[in-house]
Amino acid sequence: MCDTCGCGAPHAHEPATRAIAVGERLLADNDRAAAHNRAHFAAHGLLAVNVMGTPGAGKTALLEATIRAAGRWRVTVVEGDQATARDRDRIAAAGAPAVQVETGLGCHLDAHQVHDALHALPAQAADLLFVENVGNLVCPALFDLGEGLRVVVTSPTEGVDKPVKYPPMFRAADVVVLNKVDLLPHLPFDLAEWRAHLAAVNRCATVLLLSALTGAGLPAWLTVLERARAGAVEVHP
Amino acid sequence: MCDTCGCGAPHAHEPATRAIAVGERLLADNDRAAAHNRAHFAAHGLLAVNVMGTPGAGKTALLEATIRAAGRWRVTVVEGDQATARDRDRIAAAGAPAVQVETGLGCHLDAHQVHDALHALPAQAADLLFVENVGNLVCPALFDLGEGLRVVVTSPTEGVDKPVKYPPMFRAADVVVLNKVDLLPHLPFDLAEWRAHLAAVNRCATVLLLSALTGAGLPAWLTVLERARAGAVEVHP
Repeated sequence: MCDTCGCGAPHAHEPATRAIAVGERLLADNDRAAAHNRAHFAAHGLLAVNVMGTPGAGKTALLEATIRAAGRWRVTVVEGDQATARDRDRIAAAGAPAVQVETGLGCHLDAHQVHDALHALPAQAADLLFVENVGNLVCPALFDLGEGLRVVVTSPTEGVDKPVKYPPMFRAADVVVLNKVDLLPHLPFDLAEWRAHLAAVNRCATVLLLSALTGAGLPAWLTVLERARAGAVEVHP
Repeated sequence: MCDTCGCGAPHAHEPATRAIAVGERLLADNDRAAAHNRAHFAAHGLLAVNVMGTPGAGKTALLEATIRAAGRWRVTVVEGDQATARDRDRIAAAGAPAVQVETGLGCHLDAHQVHDALHALPAQAADLLFVENVGNLVCPALFDLGEGLRVVVTSPTEGVDKPVKYPPMFRAADVVVLNKVDLLPHLPFDLAEWRAHLAAVNRCATVLLLSALTGAGLPAWLTVLERARAGAVEVHP
C-alpha cells in the first residue's frame, strides 16, 4: 500500500469505495473470495498481477512480450473477455499456460472467477500469475481479485486526460504503463500534461513508458516485476 | 430496427439482453424512463444520438467537429464522465449548449440521468441531441436512454478484434465510426479483418471511416445524421 507518500489514494479493496450501487453484499462476497485467493498466492510464493485498462490499450501485447522476454520466470495467465478465447490463444502461442474466462454481459472479473480459473489451469508451479481483466477503465477498479500488484495499461492515443476522467482506476494502480510510445510522433499528445493529470489522482504509482510492439521500455517493466516478486516495491498485503 | 437484413442482432432495449446480474428491476425502471425520454424527443422532432465507445476513441472530438461543421442544425449535448466537466467545456467552446453528468463510480449513463440533464439544459429548440456516454465498451450497451440512433466510436489503435470481444456493444450499434484513420499508416491494423469481425456480430450497422482530427470522412457522417433526422436510415422506434 502507498501510505508513506501522503497521496491518500484509496485502493479498490478499501471500505471507502464499497458504497456503490451494485450493493454491499456483492462486494463483501467478492472480498472474501479475494482474501482466499491472496492467501493461496502467499502460500505458493506467487506474485499475482491484475492487468487492467481500456480495450485495445495493449494489455495482451504487453503480456506476450513479457512472456517472451521473461524466460526465467514460470508464467501463467487468466484471460478475461466478454467473448472469444482469442487472448488465451495468443498467450498460449507466446508460451504460457492460459485459461479464458468469458464474462458474457459482465464488465469485469471477480475473485470467484479468478479462483475457478486457477483450478482450470494445469497444476504446476509458477512464479507469476497475470490476470488480464476485461477491457474497461471503470468497473474492474472496484473488484479486488486478491492480486499483489495492480497495473493499468493505457496509451497516448487515449488522450492526456483519462486519469482525471476515470480516477478510481488510476487511483487503484500500483503501476501505470503508458504503452504505444512508438506512436508519440504521430499524435497530438502532451506527455507533461498527461503526467500532471496522473499526479492529480495518484502520485504513488510507478510510471513506465514502453512499446509492447517495438520492445522499447520493456527492461524497466521486467525490473518492476522482479522487484515486486522480491517484495521490494509496494505490494498489497 | 435492423430486422430486414437477417442478422438477428439483438439491440440493447430488447428483452433478451435483460437477464443480467444488475437485476431486472433496475433495467425495467430504466426502460420506463427511456420511454418517457423517447416520447419527449418524438414530440419535439429531436433526433437523440447515444454516442458510445472506449475511453479515448475520440467521441468528444467527433462531436466538436460535428458542431463546427453542422451550422444549420441546433445541437445540444449531454456529457457523461466519471469525473470532471472537461468535455462539457470542450463542447461549449465548440459552440453548443452542454451539460455534464458526473457518474462517480458509475460506468454508464441511464435514462433518468439523461432526463434530469435535459431539464438542466437551457430551454431552447434543438434539432440534434448528442448524449456522449461514459467511455466504456461494455455497460452502456445495456441501458436504453430513449435515443433514436446508437453510434459506437472506435479506432484502429484498438486492434481488429474488438467487435467479437465486445459483441453486445457492437451489436447495439446503428452506426460504427472508425475514427483516427489518419493513424492507419502507422499501425499494424488490417481493415478487411476488422470489417469481417464487425460483420460477424453486426451486418446491419452503417460503417464510416473518418478522422475527427483531419476532417476526413466528416461529410459522410453529416449525411448519415441528416438521413437519420429525416427518418431515412434505421432509427429505433
